[in-house]
Amino acid sequence: MTAINTAAAFRDCLARNDFAAIEAALAHRHPADLAKMTETLDSREIIQLLMLTNDRRSAKIFGYFEPAMQVAVADVLSRKELARLVTAMSHDERADLFNRLTEEQQQMLLPGMAHAEREDIRRLASYPEGTAGSIMTSDYASLTPGLTVRAAIERLRGEAPDKETIYEAYVVDEARRLIGVVSLRDLLLARNEVLVAKIMRKTVIFAQVQDGRDEVVQKISDYDLLALPIVNGDNALVGIVTVDDAMDAAEARQGRRVAQFGGNATIGGDPDLDLRNSSLLQMFKVRAFWLVMLTVFGVVTSTFVAAQEEILSQVIVLAAFIAPIVDMGGNTGSQSATLVIRAMAIGDVKLRWRDIWFVIRREIPVVLTLGVVVALLEVILAYFSKGVGGEVLLVVGLSMAVCTVLGGVIGALLPFAARRIGTDPATLSSPLITSVMDLLGVFTYFGLAYLFLGHLLVSQ
Amino acid sequence: MTAINTAAAFRDCLARNDFAAIEAALAHRHPADLAKMTETLDSREIIQLLMLTNDRRSAKIFGYFEPAMQVAVADVLSRKELARLVTAMSHDERADLFNRLTEEQQQMLLPGMAHAEREDIRRLASYPEGTAGSIMTSDYASLTPGLTVRAAIERLRGEAPDKETIYEAYVVDEARRLIGVVSLRDLLLARNEVLVAKIMRKTVIFAQVQDGRDEVVQKISDYDLLALPIVNGDNALVGIVTVDDAMDAAEARQGRRVAQFGGNATIGGDPDLDLRNSSLLQMFKVRAFWLVMLTVFGVVTSTFVAAQEEILSQVIVLAAFIAPIVDMGGNTGSQSATLVIRAMAIGDVKLRWRDIWFVIRREIPVVLTLGVVVALLEVILAYFSKGVGGEVLLVVGLSMAVCTVLGGVIGALLPFAARRIGTDPATLSSPLITSVMDLLGVFTYFGLAYLFLGHLLVSQ
Repeated sequence: MTAINTAAAFRDCLARNDFAAIEAALAHRHPADLAKMTETLDSREIIQLLMLTNDRRSAKIFGYFEPAMQVAVADVLSRKELARLVTAMSHDERADLFNRLTEEQQQMLLPGMAHAEREDIRRLASYPEGTAGSIMTSDYASLTPGLTVRAAIERLRGEAPDKETIYEAYVVDEARRLIGVVSLRDLLLARNEVLVAKIMRKTVIFAQVQDGRDEVVQKISDYDLLALPIVNGDNALVGIVTVDDAMDAAEARQGRRVAQFGGNATIGGDPDLDLRNSSLLQMFKVRAFWLVMLTVFGVVTSTFVAAQEEILSQVIVLAAFIAPIVDMGGNTGSQSATLVIRAMAIGDVKLRWRDIWFVIRREIPVVLTLGVVVALLEVILAYFSKGVGGEVLLVVGLSMAVCTVLGGVIGALLPFAARRIGTDPATLSSPLITSVMDLLGVFTYFGLAYLFLGHLLVSQ
Repeated sequence: MTAINTAAAFRDCLARNDFAAIEAALAHRHPADLAKMTETLDSREIIQLLMLTNDRRSAKIFGYFEPAMQVAVADVLSRKELARLVTAMSHDERADLFNRLTEEQQQMLLPGMAHAEREDIRRLASYPEGTAGSIMTSDYASLTPGLTVRAAIERLRGEAPDKETIYEAYVVDEARRLIGVVSLRDLLLARNEVLVAKIMRKTVIFAQVQDGRDEVVQKISDYDLLALPIVNGDNALVGIVTVDDAMDAAEARQGRRVAQFGGNATIGGDPDLDLRNSSLLQMFKVRAFWLVMLTVFGVVTSTFVAAQEEILSQVIVLAAFIAPIVDMGGNTGSQSATLVIRAMAIGDVKLRWRDIWFVIRREIPVVLTLGVVVALLEVILAYFSKGVGGEVLLVVGLSMAVCTVLGGVIGALLPFAARRIGTDPATLSSPLITSVMDLLGVFTYFGLAYLFLGHLLVSQ
């Protein structure tokens, strides 16, 4: 029997009616791999494949499809087929699918479903994006406190095919309030006649349905949980977030800091800019906000430089070094700031005086040395490429050194300042750091220029 | 009985010899919370607390201490006490602790341990940082294919207290080669007399002991695994990486891209710069590399500007706008680049023509509009703050617009170029983008200046 590894192989088998090979592949390969293999097939071919395996397996594979592919397939299925597929899906995945369907498709699907399923989908799909409710699933395993360990294990065994996980079971009272949690491991290690109430953990780590997704991910990570129970306002259990969904949520956060630091940070609770999903208008609004702010800030710098007309006319070549000098402040500042931002992200450094002192204490020798190195380099290059005179070289070298040190120290302190005013340090974007260092840079540069070259003006 | 919530409360109870309260807290609170609560106590107080609970629990709480705290406590314990603690710890955590001890402490500890434990620690501690071996644990559950389901469950029940997890059991042959995997759920759902060989999954997702840590995390994430088995060169099972350790590894990766993008990227296989752990020399070397490169690159820009002496002497005020104009290219480029870097990080965009086209197609209308907006703004501000004349305003406005558009498009393409030459897109740091746009910016600016203001030179 041919081992199927690609979409082409699937297509081939379909053409030859070699259903045995397809069934074997569908049964033995990991659903994630099957989904990836079939993503270049069209919807009708996919449906043919899915019909060759049971409902549950079909739904599992479907769950790994890219969202766009799920919607495309859903569009081609009949109401009955779609209802069957959706009923077999895990509860969080079908709620996500529901939210991606058009209103028309939603209206078509719901009447085809059983009442309990319909209500469950409606409920899960209604939670706002970014909350615990939006990533939780409702197919959790629950137990009552009066069950014996033997009965509890039997119950979990029976429910296993329909639950997201049976490794963590949640103990609830008559009002479905969460009163304890017990793991399958704990049940296996206990004696059969003991009551669940006796071995369950009463101090349960949980989250509220409206808590932020990042908070949920953090709890699962901090406490090494397999799943986190979610309760509503009445403390009744409404769902769980499993560790794999937490990992996905954590992954979606990745690169977020880079995008923020690059100057795309959104304000307030607005969703992050997303290259695929944000509208062109959103992209424009957020980016324009920052660029406009930076332009206005930059006017201060350019007005200052314009006012240095006197000394610039005397020593035109000073204009050539404005960019390299202010750049160096921004470059060093960018290096320092991102090192601190990273240290904060992994908890190595927190907003406290001893950490600020630690950072500065290490930063100063490094940027002092860096300042001397780049200043010497710039002076040497300036001499050989432009043949500038001694006093200008002095001004350029000193400015370079001062800007490097200043940039490094300020760059290192900015993330702390951001934390202090309650904003994510990564929002202090690289463009912002550059603009601040531009201003400080030109002050330093022209200040030193007047100091050492000011006699040129007097002598007129 | 007082509920203990803080280090002070612990200290209090110790002073009053209220051991019952402490024992209760140690038994019922989550080890992660206990570790956090006690981190401000000194080593001796911590040892007093740990002695009030059993070895396993003690080791669990100890495992959640910050590394520095673990080493401090280890230093105060006698060899016998330390050996006891280490024997009870999970295998990956004790190997990590071992690697943090001084050679002296290591030499003191090892003879106090049983042979099997000593060899296990030595083995686990020997894997290079950043490999699967360095984050795996060796206390996995294994089964032989000839066991019945009933026998397998009994075995897992017996081993449960000593294994990291019993929810995934690995089926090995006599040479300990990995031949299958079976979950506890599968065992519970199967009939007692069936053989493990019959129900195990034969296509096992695994990794090699020398594979990179990032690869391991990716597999666990892609396949929603609870644990990933790790094999050595002979395909023998040597350990597993559990999902909680994968989440920790993923978290440690966070902010790495920001640090790289800020201009701290290390070359080749060198470890990332780390504010806490890198030596001052390492910090200097990496940062100096980039700053020197940028300085040298910047000489091209400054030499070009110096050569524009003629037109600068005629229209001094041109110097004032050099910074804002070249900045805008860098700012927009930074925004674009980081949006693309993020999209690549979460898999939304890949190195293929249709994605490049997608990005450009969306980028162009946005940066065109941005270009017009910032150009108009700069021109208005320039007029009111400096009273510059019409032709200069035209040059400034056009340069601003062109630089914005150019910066945006180039910024968006750079991550693709990075991928093409096989380097992480985030290595294309913000300072680099700024420097490139500086050069393009001055070319554009002075090019346009000659176009519209060139007549001022001729008319001399």
